[in-house]
Amino acid sequence: MSKKILVIGGVACGPKAAARARRLDPDAEITILEKGGEISYGACGLPFYLEGEIEEISELTATPVGVQRDVNFFRAVKGVDVKLNCEAVSINRDSKTVLVKNSLSGGTEELAYDKLVIATGSSPVRPPIPGIDLEGIFCLKTLADGSAIKAVMEGARGGNAVIVGGGLIGLECVEPLLKAGFKVHVVEKLPFLLPALLDQEMAKPLMGHLVSKGVELHCNDGVEAFEDDGNGRVARVKTEKTSIDADLVILAIGFRPVTGLAEAAGLETSRFGIKVDSHMRTSDPDIYAGGDCVESWNLVSGAPMYAPMGSTANKHGRVIGNNLCGWNSTFSGVCGTGVCKVMGFNIGRTGLTERDAKNSGFEVITALTPGPDRPHYMADSKPIHMKLVAEAYSGRLLGVQVLGPGEVLSRVDTMAALLRMNGTIDDLADTDMAYAPPFSPAIDNLITAAHVIQNKRDGLVDSYSPAELKEKLERDEDFILLDVRTPGEVEMMNLPYRQVMYIPLGKVREKVSELPSDKEIVCLCKISLRGYEAARMLQGAGIDRKRIRVLDGGIVAWPYEKNIKA
Amino acid sequence: MSKKILVIGGVACGPKAAARARRLDPDAEITILEKGGEISYGACGLPFYLEGEIEEISELTATPVGVQRDVNFFRAVKGVDVKLNCEAVSINRDSKTVLVKNSLSGGTEELAYDKLVIATGSSPVRPPIPGIDLEGIFCLKTLADGSAIKAVMEGARGGNAVIVGGGLIGLECVEPLLKAGFKVHVVEKLPFLLPALLDQEMAKPLMGHLVSKGVELHCNDGVEAFEDDGNGRVARVKTEKTSIDADLVILAIGFRPVTGLAEAAGLETSRFGIKVDSHMRTSDPDIYAGGDCVESWNLVSGAPMYAPMGSTANKHGRVIGNNLCGWNSTFSGVCGTGVCKVMGFNIGRTGLTERDAKNSGFEVITALTPGPDRPHYMADSKPIHMKLVAEAYSGRLLGVQVLGPGEVLSRVDTMAALLRMNGTIDDLADTDMAYAPPFSPAIDNLITAAHVIQNKRDGLVDSYSPAELKEKLERDEDFILLDVRTPGEVEMMNLPYRQVMYIPLGKVREKVSELPSDKEIVCLCKISLRGYEAARMLQGAGIDRKRIRVLDGGIVAWPYEKNIKA
Repeated sequence: MSKKILVIGGVACGPKAAARARRLDPDAEITILEKGGEISYGACGLPFYLEGEIEEISELTATPVGVQRDVNFFRAVKGVDVKLNCEAVSINRDSKTVLVKNSLSGGTEELAYDKLVIATGSSPVRPPIPGIDLEGIFCLKTLADGSAIKAVMEGARGGNAVIVGGGLIGLECVEPLLKAGFKVHVVEKLPFLLPALLDQEMAKPLMGHLVSKGVELHCNDGVEAFEDDGNGRVARVKTEKTSIDADLVILAIGFRPVTGLAEAAGLETSRFGIKVDSHMRTSDPDIYAGGDCVESWNLVSGAPMYAPMGSTANKHGRVIGNNLCGWNSTFSGVCGTGVCKVMGFNIGRTGLTERDAKNSGFEVITALTPGPDRPHYMADSKPIHMKLVAEAYSGRLLGVQVLGPGEVLSRVDTMAALLRMNGTIDDLADTDMAYAPPFSPAIDNLITAAHVIQNKRDGLVDSYSPAELKEKLERDEDFILLDVRTPGEVEMMNLPYRQVMYIPLGKVREKVSELPSDKEIVCLCKISLRGYEAARMLQGAGIDRKRIRVLDGGIVAWPYEKNIKA
Repeated sequence: MSKKILVIGGVACGPKAAARARRLDPDAEITILEKGGEISYGACGLPFYLEGEIEEISELTATPVGVQRDVNFFRAVKGVDVKLNCEAVSINRDSKTVLVKNSLSGGTEELAYDKLVIATGSSPVRPPIPGIDLEGIFCLKTLADGSAIKAVMEGARGGNAVIVGGGLIGLECVEPLLKAGFKVHVVEKLPFLLPALLDQEMAKPLMGHLVSKGVELHCNDGVEAFEDDGNGRVARVKTEKTSIDADLVILAIGFRPVTGLAEAAGLETSRFGIKVDSHMRTSDPDIYAGGDCVESWNLVSGAPMYAPMGSTANKHGRVIGNNLCGWNSTFSGVCGTGVCKVMGFNIGRTGLTERDAKNSGFEVITALTPGPDRPHYMADSKPIHMKLVAEAYSGRLLGVQVLGPGEVLSRVDTMAALLRMNGTIDDLADTDMAYAPPFSPAIDNLITAAHVIQNKRDGLVDSYSPAELKEKLERDEDFILLDVRTPGEVEMMNLPYRQVMYIPLGKVREKVSELPSDKEIVCLCKISLRGYEAARMLQGAGIDRKRIRVLDGGIVAWPYEKNIKA
């Protein structure tokens, strides 16, 4: 008798597992249950539908050659039965059956399985805030959400939009709303945007960019209530600190794994989702789970985490499809890779932030290396900020954050590959990255960052992070902040602290004797490359190494006060 | 007494080694000898100076903040003495001295060293073709070359330009010449462009692109003579097959390592350059060498090779600087990574081509996977072609070629990192590459390629490469070329062979019985993803696996005849 494979959930992981199983096993009976009315849609494309980059929402349910991925398509092409509007109500593991309810007919039926796949996905977080059910307040998760928001956007050009949550989805909504003429507000509980992706100092340039585009940021603030217009429609968002007019609210607080069905069936779960092993098998060997409903594990730290990503869901689906058919296929974990683009500003991350790494018990060395993404002499080179994190003693790579108007994708993906392979800063420094002036500098930004960490590891230089230096300044400590940039650069931008002293790099060797012999000296320049050279000169001139440091990332990466000539 | 470090060569590796050594050893006497009049210039930027992306050639000798890297700069900032116009004539290894000739004064002197660095770089290949010394024939290597070509370009808008050599430098010259209004010809000895970088089938889309931009390609052709205009100026290029009017000729036949000095001193060399160990030390333990003058080794194949790249020269310089100061620093080899952009078409390669791999004795599996660089529903997604090469049994990654209007850098760099780490296709398939619709598809093109190779390795599908299928067609073999695309797609583009049969994928299951029971069936679609599904359907329906194949890369990657509706 042919094997019965039942798949619960028809968006990403489910259809992938089903199609893969069909290709491996032509005889299996394969059925997908989807509680909604659509199957296999590109939910990640919704912000770009709002923006107008995607003209028709139906493109999100079409194949690359324009064929709709509907029930007929799955029957004819994939050899898979799809039951839409069919919700799995409960799993009976003893009888190996699933109770299914059809939301249109109201009828129920029991379906038997030999192997079951749970791919129930995620649901948007909707905290019990007063007024959260008012009209005009949306999540962005389904095609219906997308259509509804688009309708409001088209009806209310020029109004006020409030995005609640400064994570990836929230930020992806900024550009469509700005382009549609909205005044855009972002409310974020934590002190900075993308708190799950970035360290605070790295979020600063992004925040500055958004403010320059007219976005109003309300960080360190939380929504207390949504107030209505008297007709059941949202009119205002009341936060802890202020009150914001609102014609449209997008809730982008995050997603939670949908685990109720699995829990009720007695499968192991955690707050991160359904627990699976490296074969994507749940605590019941006949039941697999994958996609947004499962607990992931970070392959850098080994820690469990929640990582709902379309890319990961597809990987899960393939592994599950293999194992459904008796193969022995594993998934190695995620790096928490994420990437995002907002108004010409790119943001990428893979692996651990400094904060993540320290929380996981790593002792770290970091490098903060802003710089052009291509040789400075190329007219279209653009800046990127980079923060590389490595384990202090082993030099093992732990993560990178890259952001700015310049290219981030290649740097993030290169690091993701090295993290997959447990690479070190020495491996990175030796990686034969592609070089040509239209693409990248001769010494890629990632390799520069590896060199900085090597220099710190090898005792050539000690540094202060911007936050550490800021604390020294706030304590009004007595030290020299030696800025070695050219007078022209200093005129354009400088730091407003009494500790600052200027000696251009080319004069440092001859002026060493003018420096006080008892104070700490913190060297900096635009990005602290010359600052590092100055530090080495001072040490070379005999100044005690303990007295000399550089400011990580220089004045460009300094996220606090600075004078900038307009 | 302080250590005397002498560096021969002042472009990339030499200054890097000197500056690094200074940062590690404040007391060393460090001198750079440069036979030309400039130091530390960005030679790789020359094509972009010709193009106008770089306005002033002096930008190529400036730091990112606009300071000229001249003798004073090196003295004051780097603490390094530079002697310009000083050629090292000979090395006396017994007395540890170098005889130096000043080309301006004509005088000579002998300089002593404790440690010597040879960074004599490369020279352009200039074969003894009749007429090669005529005016109007240039190489592109030095700033003087750049200025001279620019002057001719500005004086002769609208003329004929002939580029001899279809390698990286030759191709980088195409765009500046086209933009300056020249009719551009490229003469290449081998049957296709970028023969050192690409397999032949991968060069075809590039060649089609250049032809569409008006470039005249003369592949499989060689220059026999340059003919003059009666006044000592080139007027015509005579090739084996034709004769081309020429107002300007750029020789881009390649570069050779400059090894004469090292050879004369009795150091080991090969046709790839001066031999060095992983510490960049020559056969004399007090002499290091790096940059374009040394033999590299390919870390994938282990074979020696010539790989003159600015990125590699910088890595060499750092390693040499470390070892000059008593550290123990190594370089792991190159992957032959290269990247290039011509008229909106990107080309990248890292590791081995199929041809390289077979020549090195590897048994390989390849995947040819054209596809959009972002989700197909994104308006600005652009196509890229990809060819991934892996070792057949181990699945070890060997190399990738990526090209097209879409994004190539992230794919090349990701592979370079995996090659550095000896990764396999399974590692690649599990790499947590960044995904968001403005950047990349949910299943990145690289991961799709890894899946294709996994499927072949795991016996799910057999394939023909375009070249293999072409041979079968030329022998007019009797088989079915089963095109499973939609009728609309077929109308737009199809293959002109009698073996073609059309069944859209959605009809394949029901029409299996109509297929002949004795013929081989080769399935294809646009990119052979549906072709693969069809192959699995046919096998699932009981057709002997030996009778079923897919065409690698589908009709998109088919580099031979096809009917295309205008």
